[in-house]
Amino acid sequence: MIEEKLFKMKLASCGLAAIPGELKNNALLEIAKSLDSNRKLIIEANEKDLHNGKDLSQPILKRLLFDSEKIDGVIDGIYGLVKLEDPVHKKLSSLLLDDGLILNKISVPIGVIGVIFESRPDALVQIASLCVKSGNCVVLKGGSEAMNTNKVLADIIIQTLTAFDSRFTDTVLLIESREAVSEILKFNKYINLIIPRGSNEFVQYIQKKSSIPVLGHADGICHQYIDQFADIDTAIKVVVDSKTQYVAVCNATETLLVHANIAEKALKPVVAALREKKVEIRGCERTQKIISDVIPATETDWKTEYLDYIISIKIVDSIEEAVTHINTYGSGHTDGIITENAESKRYFETFVDTSSVVVNCSTRFADGFRYGMGAEVGVSTNKFHARGPVGLEGLIIYKYILEGNAHIVADYSGSNAKKFKHTKLDVK
Amino acid sequence: MIEEKLFKMKLASCGLAAIPGELKNNALLEIAKSLDSNRKLIIEANEKDLHNGKDLSQPILKRLLFDSEKIDGVIDGIYGLVKLEDPVHKKLSSLLLDDGLILNKISVPIGVIGVIFESRPDALVQIASLCVKSGNCVVLKGGSEAMNTNKVLADIIIQTLTAFDSRFTDTVLLIESREAVSEILKFNKYINLIIPRGSNEFVQYIQKKSSIPVLGHADGICHQYIDQFADIDTAIKVVVDSKTQYVAVCNATETLLVHANIAEKALKPVVAALREKKVEIRGCERTQKIISDVIPATETDWKTEYLDYIISIKIVDSIEEAVTHINTYGSGHTDGIITENAESKRYFETFVDTSSVVVNCSTRFADGFRYGMGAEVGVSTNKFHARGPVGLEGLIIYKYILEGNAHIVADYSGSNAKKFKHTKLDVK
Repeated sequence: MIEEKLFKMKLASCGLAAIPGELKNNALLEIAKSLDSNRKLIIEANEKDLHNGKDLSQPILKRLLFDSEKIDGVIDGIYGLVKLEDPVHKKLSSLLLDDGLILNKISVPIGVIGVIFESRPDALVQIASLCVKSGNCVVLKGGSEAMNTNKVLADIIIQTLTAFDSRFTDTVLLIESREAVSEILKFNKYINLIIPRGSNEFVQYIQKKSSIPVLGHADGICHQYIDQFADIDTAIKVVVDSKTQYVAVCNATETLLVHANIAEKALKPVVAALREKKVEIRGCERTQKIISDVIPATETDWKTEYLDYIISIKIVDSIEEAVTHINTYGSGHTDGIITENAESKRYFETFVDTSSVVVNCSTRFADGFRYGMGAEVGVSTNKFHARGPVGLEGLIIYKYILEGNAHIVADYSGSNAKKFKHTKLDVK
Repeated sequence: MIEEKLFKMKLASCGLAAIPGELKNNALLEIAKSLDSNRKLIIEANEKDLHNGKDLSQPILKRLLFDSEKIDGVIDGIYGLVKLEDPVHKKLSSLLLDDGLILNKISVPIGVIGVIFESRPDALVQIASLCVKSGNCVVLKGGSEAMNTNKVLADIIIQTLTAFDSRFTDTVLLIESREAVSEILKFNKYINLIIPRGSNEFVQYIQKKSSIPVLGHADGICHQYIDQFADIDTAIKVVVDSKTQYVAVCNATETLLVHANIAEKALKPVVAALREKKVEIRGCERTQKIISDVIPATETDWKTEYLDYIISIKIVDSIEEAVTHINTYGSGHTDGIITENAESKRYFETFVDTSSVVVNCSTRFADGFRYGMGAEVGVSTNKFHARGPVGLEGLIIYKYILEGNAHIVADYSGSNAKKFKHTKLDVK
């Protein structure tokens, strides 16, 4: 029964919260060792998946492939994670409420995290290691096309952890059937957070079905705005990278906004550079007047995440119009400005409502590895808890500990009420 | 149309995010002044509500009453809020990704917050002021029994804000019909967070219906555990306060756990003190052997938030059993230990999964005012984002700002990839 397993996991999570950083690091190193010594087993399982999926599309097969190089990659990832500071057991603040009555705020793991991901088996290892490091239990559900690889990887991780220290028993669970997904989404009693990784439709489905908070993003409609004070060379370089460095990902740019005062000068070289990379151009009426062979952009284009070699272009009369366009059509993922003007930069940074504002650089930088988080569990467009690329910090919550000496509330109530001191104490 | 209003509010929220702390404080002081000068109007509206609700129960009427003393209270609350530091525009971290490429993390408001509350009109003023201070827009829905008072209060706040500075236009909205509630719960496009304040059933209803993240708590099943190393006088004082200082609230204790080694000695005086306050005692079999006239406690008692002069008592053989009981039946709100032993204290603090652990003091302390937050928007048993009493900090999220100089991802990819530096910069 899945409920019984989840209940055990909830209890195990309370114990996992107490495990010191060094022990978690040693457990991670053991996992790295086991992955290394079980390469043959992992690759055989992956070959089975590749064989069963031989009719799948090339991009899916590329993500499904888990060869020795990919194993090296996840092992490197674990070594990187070990180097990071332990995010739990930290005293976040300390407040003297009254003599002898001290309120401490301590970082603790969230508890039990459910991660549902498609195809990529490296995601399984990455997520499980992040959860070990942050002291969270994890329920893993991978795509059925990677079934054999995921099973072997999960077995290795679970066996290594439980052999290393019995306190890791029941802290990692792999579920295999599709039905089990809709079932676990009901257990908000035991699972504290769901992280879906996959297509828009997939994430939206999970968001709709889940009674558990969902961390993630569906759309990634990212913008670049070429301000009237932009450097044209920067614009060309940054827009091309933002659009074409990898088109199939959420932080690729989908819409380019251009200030009318610079449109004549900037659009021609930018579009020429994009066309050299085989990008289809869709533009507003004013764009069509400057550039030839532009497909007219409609309202739908402003709302579309192409994930392809297509860009929509709109000319705006002011930075305010650019910002309003982004705040209306954007998904709050990543949006950029290209400008040499300090006031434009300040305005854009302040008024654009997005998780990552990028200035004179590519939207493609918005990613946990590039942001120095070691690894990421996903990118969040939530505005609740964790936003943007989410690493270890997003897997942490806090707990208040109030220590007194027979202090009671009655003494602080009514006509002769004692006053609170509320003095901040040093946390170092 | 509510959708149009919410869309306007979403755009207004992007502007509100930019308003400096001093201006928000001045706006709050204007609200305090307007409330003061409109006392007559407010009290007349409240008298209408009290008259219409004359058949309601005494506790509801008490909460509904909004007289000159309560007006003083909310004005004092505003002065307290003005004194607190501005929680937005703070640089939370800064990281050098590479030469000339700097990633800053800045605190920003969440955006648009929906607050749904029952009866108490002071909640309206408190919540609206917290939202002004934190730079959030707020959609308010109060209980229908306080309709007239809420209308007058909201009108005063909205008129004062828009007269003070036009950037506050569309930042506060009062909705009045019950249907409007189910309607706004659908608009996850415009509303970022829902905070329901009211009965269990009410909060559960909102949690079920909402497609927007909900911050709050339904149950408040709080425990006190008398450890074998407890000081008996402390136990008596703290348990009586935890249970009886105010029984109708979420942080009142519902279940008492007692270590078997101290049960004979501790239970008699504790129960005598509780009975003096007219508390009904329900106990496990072992409790019944020590104390006379105990109503047998069943499984249901461990799961029940009485909100009344009733307590359930269970004798446990170890601190581990106490902790497992709390982690199984508790609601993660507030749980306490009474002990003189450092090891017991450490064990309990670490292994109890609750938002507030209280040691040798009352569970009733878990509240935003007592925790020095100035005011609270609610108490959260979420483990996502904000937990325990939630003040200004819980109304804040962050935004990444990455500033470069024509930096592109292509340079950091492939065989000749540049390496990231990831050097932490000082934020002071």
